[in-house]
Amino acid sequence: MKRGLFVGRFQPIHKGHVEALKRVLSEIDEIVIVIGSAQRSHEFRDPFTAGERLMMVRAALHEVGVSPFDYYLIPVPDAPMHAVWVAEIDSYAPPFDIVYSNDPLTCRLFKELHRRVQAVPLLDRTAYSGTEVRRRILDGEEWRELVPMSVIRVIDEIHGVDRIRELALTDTPLGRA
Amino acid sequence: MKRGLFVGRFQPIHKGHVEALKRVLSEIDEIVIVIGSAQRSHEFRDPFTAGERLMMVRAALHEVGVSPFDYYLIPVPDAPMHAVWVAEIDSYAPPFDIVYSNDPLTCRLFKELHRRVQAVPLLDRTAYSGTEVRRRILDGEEWRELVPMSVIRVIDEIHGVDRIRELALTDTPLGRA
Amino acid sequence: MKRGLFVGRFQPIHKGHVEALKRVLSEIDEIVIVIGSAQRSHEFRDPFTAGERLMMVRAALHEVGVSPFDYYLIPVPDAPMHAVWVAEIDSYAPPFDIVYSNDPLTCRLFKELHRRVQAVPLLDRTAYSGTEVRRRILDGEEWRELVPMSVIRVIDEIHGVDRIRELALTDTPLGRA
Amino acid sequence: MKRGLFVGRFQPIHKGHVEALKRVLSEIDEIVIVIGSAQRSHEFRDPFTAGERLMMVRAALHEVGVSPFDYYLIPVPDAPMHAVWVAEIDSYAPPFDIVYSNDPLTCRLFKELHRRVQAVPLLDRTAYSGTEVRRRILDGEEWRELVPMSVIRVIDEIHGVDRIRELALTDTPLGRA
Amino acid sequence: MKRGLFVGRFQPIHKGHVEALKRVLSEIDEIVIVIGSAQRSHEFRDPFTAGERLMMVRAALHEVGVSPFDYYLIPVPDAPMHAVWVAEIDSYAPPFDIVYSNDPLTCRLFKELHRRVQAVPLLDRTAYSGTEVRRRILDGEEWRELVPMSVIRVIDEIHGVDRIRELALTDTPLGRA
Amino acid sequence: MKRGLFVGRFQPIHKGHVEALKRVLSEIDEIVIVIGSAQRSHEFRDPFTAGERLMMVRAALHEVGVSPFDYYLIPVPDAPMHAVWVAEIDSYAPPFDIVYSNDPLTCRLFKELHRRVQAVPLLDRTAYSGTEVRRRILDGEEWRELVPMSVIRVIDEIHGVDRIRELALTDTPLGRA
Repeated sequence: MKRGLFVGRFQPIHKGHVEALKRVLSEIDEIVIVIGSAQRSHEFRDPFTAGERLMMVRAALHEVGVSPFDYYLIPVPDAPMHAVWVAEIDSYAPPFDIVYSNDPLTCRLFKELHRRVQAVPLLDRTAYSGTEVRRRILDGEEWRELVPMSVIRVIDEIHGVDRIRELALTDTPLGRA
Repeated sequence: MKRGLFVGRFQPIHKGHVEALKRVLSEIDEIVIVIGSAQRSHEFRDPFTAGERLMMVRAALHEVGVSPFDYYLIPVPDAPMHAVWVAEIDSYAPPFDIVYSNDPLTCRLFKELHRRVQAVPLLDRTAYSGTEVRRRILDGEEWRELVPMSVIRVIDEIHGVDRIRELALTDTPLGRA
Repeated sequence: MKRGLFVGRFQPIHKGHVEALKRVLSEIDEIVIVIGSAQRSHEFRDPFTAGERLMMVRAALHEVGVSPFDYYLIPVPDAPMHAVWVAEIDSYAPPFDIVYSNDPLTCRLFKELHRRVQAVPLLDRTAYSGTEVRRRILDGEEWRELVPMSVIRVIDEIHGVDRIRELALTDTPLGRA
Repeated sequence: MKRGLFVGRFQPIHKGHVEALKRVLSEIDEIVIVIGSAQRSHEFRDPFTAGERLMMVRAALHEVGVSPFDYYLIPVPDAPMHAVWVAEIDSYAPPFDIVYSNDPLTCRLFKELHRRVQAVPLLDRTAYSGTEVRRRILDGEEWRELVPMSVIRVIDEIHGVDRIRELALTDTPLGRA
Repeated sequence: MKRGLFVGRFQPIHKGHVEALKRVLSEIDEIVIVIGSAQRSHEFRDPFTAGERLMMVRAALHEVGVSPFDYYLIPVPDAPMHAVWVAEIDSYAPPFDIVYSNDPLTCRLFKELHRRVQAVPLLDRTAYSGTEVRRRILDGEEWRELVPMSVIRVIDEIHGVDRIRELALTDTPLGRA
Repeated sequence: MKRGLFVGRFQPIHKGHVEALKRVLSEIDEIVIVIGSAQRSHEFRDPFTAGERLMMVRAALHEVGVSPFDYYLIPVPDAPMHAVWVAEIDSYAPPFDIVYSNDPLTCRLFKELHRRVQAVPLLDRTAYSGTEVRRRILDGEEWRELVPMSVIRVIDEIHGVDRIRELALTDTPLGRA
């Protein structure tokens, strides 16, 4: 049995993520999906809680026919030091054989520890990114085409569009943590 | 759809947990299983990592025919203050209607916030407890009857018996954190 | 008895704050004033310690005839997660019925928990803001007209002008925390 | 003007504290009362939140005629290192000339930094202690004679007796923090 | 060049440590000495600061002719999770080939990551331990024979005996951190 | 004996640092070199771990004939509050008489506590700075002339150039901690 790791913040999960996860699943048996920066929410760049993101990811994967038998979905808070982040992932996740990532830092940290890392073929990254989804929501542009139907439903239910727009207005009264 | 919360440290998951989870699932549609003190491991009282406990819980539920469609399995680290623990759970978990717990503190914290709490009917609590499992492992007594087959397999694979016995010998060289 | 909550960083307290607090007090019996980001000081954006800010707020309110019988003054450090910030406030403060705030994030966090939130009528916000006070101090412009007399006295006593100017020069040798 | 520091956990404030604070106030002009371990609550040894303790201390002092003009009441969370605790107090409190304490560690930490420390004359310490109040509450003995009337009222209002008894029953489901 | 790791709390360094370090140095070229729990001090079990322990270790090694060319001396604070402790050590220390330790937990954590671990031959562990030194100091027994001359001098200079005795009297006013 | 303190992040140590340290050592007997922000690494602005920086500083000083007898080299993580940073330094370092620094914040924090502070005469600060070294590495310009030979060797050994260039590409997948 071969298990792969996939890390994302999923703020929110978009069609690029879903496509990538499906391709990864075609190569391995089980995928460990880490919801990174799990402690963050209610910031413009990180609007959704870990719980909300868990629901979105599960719904999005269900929508395309991926069963929860095929993946672990694990929220992990930021490590206090980059240098211990891989160890933290190892302690929150079941053992995995390979890391799928396009992020230079994630790749670097795993490679320095001689772990196997492989690039993820993504759809057009400019369009399909959390940054783009949040920007379109803020600017009142069409964002719904970027995310799965079931994710639109969750965002609507939790009034996510309002939240993102209000968060963009704050001048950080709660500190910049 | 009705969703319930069930919190445990699962160090390790035992037959009492499994029975309780099955009973809870007979009353509600979906259960959010929180693996508490997720950051702890390699202590005599908390020997297993969150990742190891995730594997054990999933395997144990699979063994008795509970599908991952019916539950969320979410590791959550300890809150820095008891007074914010419920809020932390709310941010890591999907919304839930009811809390199943026999622990006085868990019950109290949720009740003070006017959340619905219900006792869990457990098997004989003296025998079926993580404390008892760890004690028997340490003392070389028969512990395998207390946990599901699939959990025995995981514990054996990760040399869990050795780990528990060695942890019992330390005089806390890494601080008492 | 009706109690209201008012959150600010008070870096430093200015005439806009004082006016707002007086208006709030005309509507309720007691006000809980939270000095937010209490752990921060010695940064250009957060120059003063919680203790210095406590002194300034008390002096400023005394100057306009508000008695300490009418308010609680409570320093609260930043929460580790936005999602638990309301719970942290609840644990540091006596119970309150209503939140007075113009900050979108503060309003949002309380509203998501179905707490009563009301806007604060402020004087001209461009002039009366901590940001403007610090900017004028840095640029050597007239800042004294923006803050109460008693606050000027505290800032002078603790050499606050020098501190702000020196903090503006640092290239963050202590990290960017 | 002479200012003194008085540190306590006030779990809860009792008649010994009140008497001590009155004696201290007869020697100095203003007292800075620190509510220590502010982040702790809902533990048997630390049942009450900082907000609850603030209310109790203020009510108890009001009951004996001490005005809020004469004291600052400041919740301060535990420092991450004993060696920085005095610096943390200095940053949360206005400047003070003298420390009133009978606790050997508090005295030691301030003395090592050459700060003036003075013992507090207390009533019979065996009876008048938070430990004794909590023990009597747990054992169903007469505890009301140990605390001021107004504190009894707060404890009753927040169902403090129930809370203490329930906390004594937990086997620490939330970790041992 | 072969480098070894040696971890201790050194509260305080005693003759058993010195002997062990000399034996280790006879087998390898350079030793990385980690002063663990660096953030702790002013507790009965951890009385000395990292800075004081650095001075003691350096003085003790100088006394027996070990040159600072032959070792690194590195204070490292406790990790927030046992599972990341090895990664934290790796980030604070230069690379090392082998770990010298008799502590079951230290050995276990390194072994689980397939690192080379070797037992340290120590003098009689009952007598030569930090616990025994602190106990004798507290009970007024002869403790000076257990530590090097130069360490006695540092302890005397910083009034270490008084500190340990006073810390034993506290009932933890600063929380139990 | 006179001891001085010198704080730097040493990302990486460059010829300006080395020259400054030599000048300081000509005025005092022993220097305490603090490697600040010790917990940071694998960020573009803080690429190297504390352990790597320890090796570089030791090698650079050895190269110019400074013996480890003449200095302490101490990694110290960031304090949680600027207001306790001096206390943290005091607990990690042996006692020192004077602070050598050109950083306005470091100077301010020590001066507010009435500690002796003195400016460090540095070589041309524009060229000899960590910022400039990292910029040149990123832009493929000549950076080797800015750092000692032995530091070039360490950076080459740990593939430091690659690391800095990859870190510059990340869009912070691990949060912005």
